[in-house]
Amino acid sequence: MSHTIKEIAAALGAEAFGAVDLEVTSLAEPTVAGADQLALAMSEKFIDGLAEGQARAAVLSAGTDWQALGLQAAILVSRPRYALAGLTTAMDAGPHIAPGHHATAVIDPSAEIGDGAAIGPFVVIGAGAKLGANAKIAEHVSIGAGAVIGDDAVIHSGARVGARVSVGDRVFIQPGAVIGGDGFSFVTPEKSTVETARESLGKADVTTDAQSWTRIHSLGSVTIGDDVEIGANSAIDRGTISNTEIGDGTKLDNLVHIGHNVRIGRDCLICGQVGSAGSVVIGDRVVLGGQCGLSDNITIGNDVVAAGATKIYSNVPAGRMLMGAPAVKMDTQVEIYKAMRRLPRVMKTVDALQKAVFKRDQND
Amino acid sequence: MSHTIKEIAAALGAEAFGAVDLEVTSLAEPTVAGADQLALAMSEKFIDGLAEGQARAAVLSAGTDWQALGLQAAILVSRPRYALAGLTTAMDAGPHIAPGHHATAVIDPSAEIGDGAAIGPFVVIGAGAKLGANAKIAEHVSIGAGAVIGDDAVIHSGARVGARVSVGDRVFIQPGAVIGGDGFSFVTPEKSTVETARESLGKADVTTDAQSWTRIHSLGSVTIGDDVEIGANSAIDRGTISNTEIGDGTKLDNLVHIGHNVRIGRDCLICGQVGSAGSVVIGDRVVLGGQCGLSDNITIGNDVVAAGATKIYSNVPAGRMLMGAPAVKMDTQVEIYKAMRRLPRVMKTVDALQKAVFKRDQND
Amino acid sequence: MSHTIKEIAAALGAEAFGAVDLEVTSLAEPTVAGADQLALAMSEKFIDGLAEGQARAAVLSAGTDWQALGLQAAILVSRPRYALAGLTTAMDAGPHIAPGHHATAVIDPSAEIGDGAAIGPFVVIGAGAKLGANAKIAEHVSIGAGAVIGDDAVIHSGARVGARVSVGDRVFIQPGAVIGGDGFSFVTPEKSTVETARESLGKADVTTDAQSWTRIHSLGSVTIGDDVEIGANSAIDRGTISNTEIGDGTKLDNLVHIGHNVRIGRDCLICGQVGSAGSVVIGDRVVLGGQCGLSDNITIGNDVVAAGATKIYSNVPAGRMLMGAPAVKMDTQVEIYKAMRRLPRVMKTVDALQKAVFKRDQND
Repeated sequence: MSHTIKEIAAALGAEAFGAVDLEVTSLAEPTVAGADQLALAMSEKFIDGLAEGQARAAVLSAGTDWQALGLQAAILVSRPRYALAGLTTAMDAGPHIAPGHHATAVIDPSAEIGDGAAIGPFVVIGAGAKLGANAKIAEHVSIGAGAVIGDDAVIHSGARVGARVSVGDRVFIQPGAVIGGDGFSFVTPEKSTVETARESLGKADVTTDAQSWTRIHSLGSVTIGDDVEIGANSAIDRGTISNTEIGDGTKLDNLVHIGHNVRIGRDCLICGQVGSAGSVVIGDRVVLGGQCGLSDNITIGNDVVAAGATKIYSNVPAGRMLMGAPAVKMDTQVEIYKAMRRLPRVMKTVDALQKAVFKRDQND
Repeated sequence: MSHTIKEIAAALGAEAFGAVDLEVTSLAEPTVAGADQLALAMSEKFIDGLAEGQARAAVLSAGTDWQALGLQAAILVSRPRYALAGLTTAMDAGPHIAPGHHATAVIDPSAEIGDGAAIGPFVVIGAGAKLGANAKIAEHVSIGAGAVIGDDAVIHSGARVGARVSVGDRVFIQPGAVIGGDGFSFVTPEKSTVETARESLGKADVTTDAQSWTRIHSLGSVTIGDDVEIGANSAIDRGTISNTEIGDGTKLDNLVHIGHNVRIGRDCLICGQVGSAGSVVIGDRVVLGGQCGLSDNITIGNDVVAAGATKIYSNVPAGRMLMGAPAVKMDTQVEIYKAMRRLPRVMKTVDALQKAVFKRDQND
Repeated sequence: MSHTIKEIAAALGAEAFGAVDLEVTSLAEPTVAGADQLALAMSEKFIDGLAEGQARAAVLSAGTDWQALGLQAAILVSRPRYALAGLTTAMDAGPHIAPGHHATAVIDPSAEIGDGAAIGPFVVIGAGAKLGANAKIAEHVSIGAGAVIGDDAVIHSGARVGARVSVGDRVFIQPGAVIGGDGFSFVTPEKSTVETARESLGKADVTTDAQSWTRIHSLGSVTIGDDVEIGANSAIDRGTISNTEIGDGTKLDNLVHIGHNVRIGRDCLICGQVGSAGSVVIGDRVVLGGQCGLSDNITIGNDVVAAGATKIYSNVPAGRMLMGAPAVKMDTQVEIYKAMRRLPRVMKTVDALQKAVFKRDQND
């Protein structure tokens, strides 16, 4: 499938220059671009590669002198990463899931399947489930009894949507994601060692009496808004009584763990391997870098941004930028890190001071 | 399905008051409870919600004046979370896996299937596998050759139970869990950079000679006790020669990684995204918070409790409460964290002291 | 299947002593070894167990006086772990995937299947995919359109190989691994809070203007070299324009997350739950301990070794040994950790010094 430079620029809302009727078949990095490809050279380091490759047309940052680069055509954009979104959307043929319902799919007769939905091999759809119009369900997907999938949703191979889970329109679920596992919620008949530890902050002795864990069943479900993305092999547990919730426009990366009863707002970015314990409330537009961890029952305000591997043990006010384990304000943490690197040497200085001032060696 | 207040109280071993023949259909949080639902208001913050919702009956903490709350009936409990276990168990209809063996399942003729076992679509059961009575096996599950599954076990969709793996009675395996992957165990013909690093604690130069990894195959299996729960998309590797072992009553949350040859005792709680390298020995009743990490070949004593994201690099005696990276005693770590926050300012004090005492600036 | 001591020694390139025609059926730890098993007692702590078990033959470290141990035969090896690789390889019958193509597999007519390939139940192979000779594809595996799988590759149950992904010869893919999910790449029309946070290192106020994320589609794929291993439930995302790459001989453990556009060199070891954000470049022979984290767009030189749970936020030169969060040189980090443990007490010393020298209390 080929596109003209003019068509692509129009899709981006950007301006095209030169031979705007030139056709390209796909995108490429400049050094490896063929004569029929559109080179992406929006940043300085890529521009030099144009001479090395064969591209006759390129996407460049606004203000670049495209003619000096020997190109026949160019598209100039003011926000390169945003242009990349438009470019890749325009050139993506989308996942290949054959139209219709594959003969091997096991679809309960009481399930309602929307117009234009595509259902792949070995899919299982439970009683009373509802599938939106044009939803694409890849092979080996499970959709539990009573689950609801929105219009234009794409569910990749082997993902699990549990019973009564609700998923909005235009949601992408990557392979192997599990939505609606049971919450991790157990209780002992008597007070457990972990309760004692929490209450005493580790100062109390731990009793060694036997304790067995009784299961708190998960009667709630999971509600996922519109335009959400769930990464590969992520796991979102159902709520105990109410539902676990993911707001509209929120994106979860791979291998993310969301515990029972968690409520996440809208337009958040939850990066790879983030883990949230149960009953956490996360506001809107929150960004959690990869491997962040959240203790249970805390609240994260709107617009919080946490650097990768930040471990958050307590409530965070709106707008705070965090870093570190345990999390503190990002600029404070930068100072702490600098101080930590100096620490071994400063310790020696303190020892010397102690000796000089108190006429004795340090005794700690 | 509805239950009377009297029946529910009896199931909990708790006392019922008022119109104990009132029928309820399900549980709800007080603010959203309908007239046919049982409101859960065991903590102070939920009691106010009763007036907002429609519930005529509620579960309350012992000592609460239920009549003053305008309720027609009440169940009073002394340990609310434990009551929640009983309540949710009573109200949970359980996962829907149709009785019998689905026509699409591929079951080796030599497999032994217990009475009352339910086997879903597209399940694959290998040669010589044994399935206990009333086991429920959801769609897309793999059960390898020679694997043994206990009575009343529930294995959710897409979970993988490898060849020769043994799983006890009443075990819950959440979707996508993998039990019996190969151990991550490789060796180079000559000493590798990682061995050099460990021996020298990072002081030695790393040689840059090429090294290729040779696979140590996993001939052992995995043995899982009774009443164990394995979370969604968790992975438990088989042992090299002997088996990896998970003791009775131990619960693993989502996305947990258990390396080869690990032996975990009974009644442990291993929270989300915990990772244990190979050959770790974990005692009984150990609680590891989310994202804890354990180095290989260490021993964790009975009743150890580690806060979330604790990284444990060495042996831990029984009963110790741990926090931090690297792990230290929880109360010590709390002091270290406090000190770290003061650190940038204290550094300035030390600089000033150095100048005052030694008449020169700090030179570190 | 039984082997003579002589045969096994020959397979290892090691020397056999005593009754070298003795036959053994499998390997065992000394204490539990039967008379027909070969005991593994290469380390001191296992030698005592020989008396407890029934083994008549054992593998021992070079120089051990095997006759004094009451054995009838022995194999002496100079590098025990390397010998273990040879021993387990020799004794592993390999995963049981029946030869031929299972009747239930859905194989596109345009796919090319190599000689001797074994394809299990419910496998789905897309249009134009190519499967190498003797590849073993277990049940419930998906192989996308245009994917290429090398000779002798083993793909375990439920793994997902996405469209156009290329996998080399002799690769092992453990159950549930996802290769070729979409990259986690989103952009806002205007500058986002996370961009502001990065630029200001957390010092700027975060605007609370609404922002929605636009998807950057992943048009690239994933290229995996020969002799690679991918752990259970790991996830490797496809590139945006070019491909994500894993070099020959590199091994990934369970639950590893590799973001879009990452390029990993050859013969690396990437341990359990490591996460790499997008566009990271990792050299050859790099070893990352469990739960390491890598920020996006950084470069890790050849032969870098990072201890478990090291969090790497910036470029690392070749040969460096790292530890800690944030990562610093391993020996420096060991000093920092020691200093941190002393810190609460040293703080008191500084307070006392401040009082003595400046005649006032600390005021920080």
